Amino acid sequence: MADVHTFTTLRWQGAPGGDDIDGHLVLLDQTRLPGEVVEIDCRTVEDVWQAIKRLAVRGAPAIGCAAAYGVCLSLSSSSRVATQRKEYHEKTKPNDLTLALPSNAAIEPVERACDYLATSRPTAVNLFWALDRMRKTAQRAAASSPSGELAKRLLEEATAIHNEDRQMCADIGRHGADLLGKLPVGSGILTHCNAGALATGGDGTALSVIFELARRDRKPQVWVDETRPLLQGARLTAWELMQRGIDCTLICDSMAAQVMREGRIQAVVTGADCIAANGDAANKIGTYSVALLAKAHDIPFYIAAPSSTFDHSLATGNEIPIEERDPAEITHSFGVATAPTGISVYNPAFDVTPAELIAGIFTETGVIHC
Amino acid sequence: MADVHTFTTLRWQGAPGGDDIDGHLVLLDQTRLPGEVVEIDCRTVEDVWQAIKRLAVRGAPAIGCAAAYGVCLSLSSSSRVATQRKEYHEKTKPNDLTLALPSNAAIEPVERACDYLATSRPTAVNLFWALDRMRKTAQRAAASSPSGELAKRLLEEATAIHNEDRQMCADIGRHGADLLGKLPVGSGILTHCNAGALATGGDGTALSVIFELARRDRKPQVWVDETRPLLQGARLTAWELMQRGIDCTLICDSMAAQVMREGRIQAVVTGADCIAANGDAANKIGTYSVALLAKAHDIPFYIAAPSSTFDHSLATGNEIPIEERDPAEITHSFGVATAPTGISVYNPAFDVTPAELIAGIFTETGVIHC
Repeated sequence: MADVHTFTTLRWQGAPGGDDIDGHLVLLDQTRLPGEVVEIDCRTVEDVWQAIKRLAVRGAPAIGCAAAYGVCLSLSSSSRVATQRKEYHEKTKPNDLTLALPSNAAIEPVERACDYLATSRPTAVNLFWALDRMRKTAQRAAASSPSGELAKRLLEEATAIHNEDRQMCADIGRHGADLLGKLPVGSGILTHCNAGALATGGDGTALSVIFELARRDRKPQVWVDETRPLLQGARLTAWELMQRGIDCTLICDSMAAQVMREGRIQAVVTGADCIAANGDAANKIGTYSVALLAKAHDIPFYIAAPSSTFDHSLATGNEIPIEERDPAEITHSFGVATAPTGISVYNPAFDVTPAELIAGIFTETGVIHC
Repeated sequence: MADVHTFTTLRWQGAPGGDDIDGHLVLLDQTRLPGEVVEIDCRTVEDVWQAIKRLAVRGAPAIGCAAAYGVCLSLSSSSRVATQRKEYHEKTKPNDLTLALPSNAAIEPVERACDYLATSRPTAVNLFWALDRMRKTAQRAAASSPSGELAKRLLEEATAIHNEDRQMCADIGRHGADLLGKLPVGSGILTHCNAGALATGGDGTALSVIFELARRDRKPQVWVDETRPLLQGARLTAWELMQRGIDCTLICDSMAAQVMREGRIQAVVTGADCIAANGDAANKIGTYSVALLAKAHDIPFYIAAPSSTFDHSLATGNEIPIEERDPAEITHSFGVATAPTGISVYNPAFDVTPAELIAGIFTETGVIHC
């Protein structure tokens, strides 16, 4: 297997010759894939919000990382103000250290950024989890660090979230491959949407399992649901798999049942955007459909997701809020009108797969059997 | 309900000031819908073959009608030759009537046209059924009619196939509405692909049931699967339903399970391209998937199809040949590349729904319970 990884989903770019905290977030614009590999610079919180909203960055773990770095950008101007104030106080009252601590006013832009970024996608629980970590980091800094440290602490936390995400991907891949590696060499694995390196700060969740199977020479044959309406399967998953030289075949979502019936799929693995306390899992629309079809063909259906995807405050999947998106994603995908003008459209971005359809959840700590 | 029918799927156009047999076939080019309503003229057998192949006309019953008219075009030159020969013989041997009968040579272009048109789509059994009727008509004419009658007999048969199709659609609609009319007013009905007026010489099969329910004021709420890869649901079914003022909502194929789970669908009705002796039914890819999802939600799944769709020579659906189509339908379907160059693709045009998933088949003679 040519395990080439020629792209970076997201990275923090330090200012040239300057401090890391004066840097900005660089994202691979996933809306341009597979045709063009283009990076975009996010220099404000608003830039990051827009990038998440329009799916330039997507995938629950990647959204979490992007939002964390986005919070760092909230200080790009206010941190300078705080620094100026600190310098003023150091000059006038050099021994009054309490005045040098970040005030509530100083972390206000951080709080505002967290509130704002949380509105970009309603379903991805990693987003709220990452923002919560950033908010707590700011509060801790306000209570204990000198004010000039706030920006540094935030960037350290965002970087930690990103690094943990990388490790989490590797661990998920290992646990998943330990289980799916028991299937015969060359087994067929179906995946829906994109839960790969493009969806995380690391090697992906569902695709990390597949990459690890390939590394172990299990020669997975991957079936890729194109994943309407935005074709993340066709545009992103197929692209990632081809980049790594993994055998894959693209199908329309409606063909999965037929391929299962032909006996060509031995397991299904997808990611998840939110998992309720009882194991019900929200993921890209069509996942519930795939899980039902897998059950009808006695094929095990797995979720691969970090434990940060669990929202234990939600008892069941019925409580998971489901984002509805623009009808134009269905009627005008790819720039041409493919439906009559004025047609009513229903466009839920996610669905919920009940725990009883899930054979197991691959997490960074092991496999949870539902 | 505004029951407006502003288009004609196919019609035979007589030559201006000339005989009907010198006419040609006019088809609504369904590849241009819903953006443009454009008719195309088919003046040769090749024109008709191409129109069927590239889906300018599609839907099993409509393909049967188009192919029947296509056979008539096979005589556009050869009938003149036959007529000339007849005139010659009438002049030289006016009493030798055997020479005035169409010879095997005279019906050779008809046989060739039937063989050729049969290669346009491998799965639509109505195509073979219609061509078989045309072939037998030619053979009967060869055995008994004066040679000048051959073209006339063929056009009469094609017109009969078309007229019977219209009546068949009305009867299917009536039988289906008798059964589905028992559902509460405003019930949700899901359909896949297009089995409407655009798919037949009349009012459709599955949509004929829906049109009849609307006429009976049962206010059906129709859920339209967009039907990847060629979006016949989005482009054709949604368009037909809107033209008739019927409530409809467009969804991606992958969303059907979610809409079912929300309790918004009380029945599924689709057409069929071929039904085996045991009731297994081939229809547009994705139909099998919908049937499984309906079963998982305890929703009855019906097929609406004329009895000419049955191929009693096939014991089960396993014997139905399944057409595979161009990968570009999936990778370039919106005029832009939406998948990586060189990706492997599987693109079966149909799947087979086993009889046990079918609650009933609406035919022109009544409802067959599988």
